[in-house]
Amino acid sequence: MQKKTGKALEYLRKRSEATLSELRELLEIPSISTQESASGDVEQAADWIARKLERMGAQNVGLLSKGGHPVVFGEVGEEGTAPTVLVYGHYDVQPPEPLEAWTMEPFKPRVRDGKLYARGATDMKGQLIAALAAVEAAQRSGIPLHAKFLFEGEEEIGSRSLPDVLREHRDIFAADFALNPDAGMIRADLPTITYALRGGALFQLEVFGPAQDVHSGLYGGAIRNPAHVLCEVLARLHEEDGRVSLPGFYDRVRELDEEERRQLAELPMDDDFYLDNTGSPALWGEPGYTPVERVGARPTLEINSLNAGYTGDGFKAIVPHAAKANLSTRLVPDQDPVEAYSQLRSFLEEAMPMDVRWELEYIVGVKPSIIDRESQVVQKLAAALEEEWGTTPVFQRVGGGIPVVSHLQDILGMPSVLTGFSLPDDNLHGPDEKLDLGVWRKGTAALVRFFGALTEN
Amino acid sequence: MQKKTGKALEYLRKRSEATLSELRELLEIPSISTQESASGDVEQAADWIARKLERMGAQNVGLLSKGGHPVVFGEVGEEGTAPTVLVYGHYDVQPPEPLEAWTMEPFKPRVRDGKLYARGATDMKGQLIAALAAVEAAQRSGIPLHAKFLFEGEEEIGSRSLPDVLREHRDIFAADFALNPDAGMIRADLPTITYALRGGALFQLEVFGPAQDVHSGLYGGAIRNPAHVLCEVLARLHEEDGRVSLPGFYDRVRELDEEERRQLAELPMDDDFYLDNTGSPALWGEPGYTPVERVGARPTLEINSLNAGYTGDGFKAIVPHAAKANLSTRLVPDQDPVEAYSQLRSFLEEAMPMDVRWELEYIVGVKPSIIDRESQVVQKLAAALEEEWGTTPVFQRVGGGIPVVSHLQDILGMPSVLTGFSLPDDNLHGPDEKLDLGVWRKGTAALVRFFGALTEN
Repeated sequence: MQKKTGKALEYLRKRSEATLSELRELLEIPSISTQESASGDVEQAADWIARKLERMGAQNVGLLSKGGHPVVFGEVGEEGTAPTVLVYGHYDVQPPEPLEAWTMEPFKPRVRDGKLYARGATDMKGQLIAALAAVEAAQRSGIPLHAKFLFEGEEEIGSRSLPDVLREHRDIFAADFALNPDAGMIRADLPTITYALRGGALFQLEVFGPAQDVHSGLYGGAIRNPAHVLCEVLARLHEEDGRVSLPGFYDRVRELDEEERRQLAELPMDDDFYLDNTGSPALWGEPGYTPVERVGARPTLEINSLNAGYTGDGFKAIVPHAAKANLSTRLVPDQDPVEAYSQLRSFLEEAMPMDVRWELEYIVGVKPSIIDRESQVVQKLAAALEEEWGTTPVFQRVGGGIPVVSHLQDILGMPSVLTGFSLPDDNLHGPDEKLDLGVWRKGTAALVRFFGALTEN
Repeated sequence: MQKKTGKALEYLRKRSEATLSELRELLEIPSISTQESASGDVEQAADWIARKLERMGAQNVGLLSKGGHPVVFGEVGEEGTAPTVLVYGHYDVQPPEPLEAWTMEPFKPRVRDGKLYARGATDMKGQLIAALAAVEAAQRSGIPLHAKFLFEGEEEIGSRSLPDVLREHRDIFAADFALNPDAGMIRADLPTITYALRGGALFQLEVFGPAQDVHSGLYGGAIRNPAHVLCEVLARLHEEDGRVSLPGFYDRVRELDEEERRQLAELPMDDDFYLDNTGSPALWGEPGYTPVERVGARPTLEINSLNAGYTGDGFKAIVPHAAKANLSTRLVPDQDPVEAYSQLRSFLEEAMPMDVRWELEYIVGVKPSIIDRESQVVQKLAAALEEEWGTTPVFQRVGGGIPVVSHLQDILGMPSVLTGFSLPDDNLHGPDEKLDLGVWRKGTAALVRFFGALTEN
């Protein structure tokens, strides 16, 4: 370890409480990008980060927007002999609903038993602040790091306007690689580098019935009920054994080879891992694959929501005028989101009764990605994680898509190194989302070590 | 026509504007019985009616309650040679949601083109006020009518506590028959008497998945999605041709004989009637029956609502922790709601995957009913309607259930005469519910004629 890295780790420890306070401040801003009504809060989070970058002494700090929530940019250090790193993060969060499932207010962060609870604590304001703290420590300690920042506010809505921002500002984002700490760990004692991400696409399906809700006694049995139609069609999305029924859906799926299956089988993610982390009574899925293979290396098609009729208190005996479902597919190399959309549309054209009006909307899509495990940057990150944890990191495939990874690859030709310090039971997207502060501090220190190593020849 | 009936019709005409004002006052009270939060408003509507009865000079006015919203009771006239009539009504209404589907505020009544728009205008505050106005006119004009009132506040939630109220107060409700104006007309120019009602039952089905909503990228494809299970099970409730699949469901259904089918075929309710009144693009239902037969004389099983996952703005990419459906069945003689519940439960026990937890709740049920078309009271009502409209009334079966009809029959042995002045396009239970004021005034006058005839020997 270089002397400067030691100094940076010391700086990090001294600022530990200040860093936690900063995280709490950021968590108090309810930057819910999925809700139009919260757009002021989303902007506020962007401003908070821009001010933080200025306090760190970053240059060229600014907000870049192409019609959506702004991308916060900034830069520390100068181009030199070491590679330039683009530090990625997102400052938007999922909606906290249903609120009654929380034991606390989602935007009033609370520390309990070494964990920090709040919406966004682990996904990913905690990770974003960790990266900032590591850059700051490296920089204040003389490590000749050249880092740029890309913090977006639309990750939870599919990074909608990010491609346009990247296309317009290719030069300012130019870097040798992106560091993306949004990928999480397998277990608190197993530092993790993610080498493959599923892509995917979001769809909204709506089936229309009578012109408005009508009395189910007076008209029920004589007209089509769109909720019936929706259920009947959605029931046919899967074969009885769990395979997705869309014709052609599996045609481009790269099969796992025996070597990779062996490696995936060694990950500490057995059936109990999935049962314990979800509270599901049983596993289920495509036959012939283990859960870790299903989630990392096989595509899926899920119903994310259903909505028809009156769902408030009590009971409304109606034939609803419409029935809606949000659907999402997760895709693996070499599937394509637009092709999956076409397959779903063809399936629905076949499955829907001729006399029913329906609409399928393609919300957003992202390609799957796989990265090179043998590059120098990945190896240096692995070494930094190993120094901090005292154990060899695991390399995993992850089921969630990260659009920015695909956009950076497609638009800027930039590879992403994926890691992160969120845990499987952190309830990201769920109630009582948390961040394990011990793991988070270790992760922040590992990033400092990584930045130190990165500038060594 | 007796002289007193003429006088009563004159009284009615003079009070026409006052009667309309009373209706508007009652409509301004948002007495939504399906919502706990509106219970104060429901009570306020009961009080309003009690005060109105007192102003009419009714005796024994009071609110009777057995844990639910009160039944308003009162009585005018005295037992004599004419039959005692129990005038039935309900003062509760359906929720107005979705509010954005209304072109106005649902509880600010508005008259437009001879129609009064408001939630409850036709179902059934308008009908209730019509009956009160007719009784008042008869009474003020010396018609020796003996009428009792039963106005409940739980019709839209299945008349939950009405059976207990009836059992506790058998004597005070004792009457020769009930007049129930909640049954509606086929068309504005066709006065209608309803002789058969479907019964039914309401159920809530919930399927449980992971302990809480989980990320569909990280866990999708490895665990069961309760929305999939719900759709797959609900899709199996019907055969492809539209028949209900529950084993035994049709066993007790009384088949229509040729004579009744001929009569039903003569009703002005063809395919276009159902298409126009619902805005449905096409009809659908049990094969071998016309729409009017399906709605009046055949049982159904409908999905009234679906609810799973995040249904607000935007998109939440989750595997939802649960998926819910409200279901209702409509039953015909001699089916039984409790038996239908058992059939549904058995079906679900068979259809649900073994490793999925689910709950089925029986909310409320009511038996189907059929009444004697040849009784003197029914014939007198038919004559009164004919005098006012100048056309022979039609006798119809109605698809909606009216629990009170079955409770009065079961508990007090009292038959109900069913009529009413709501129209098929009044949007009862839907947005912009309306009441046709011309039809309503004619109906009120017909009730005056009926009360006059009733007291003739």
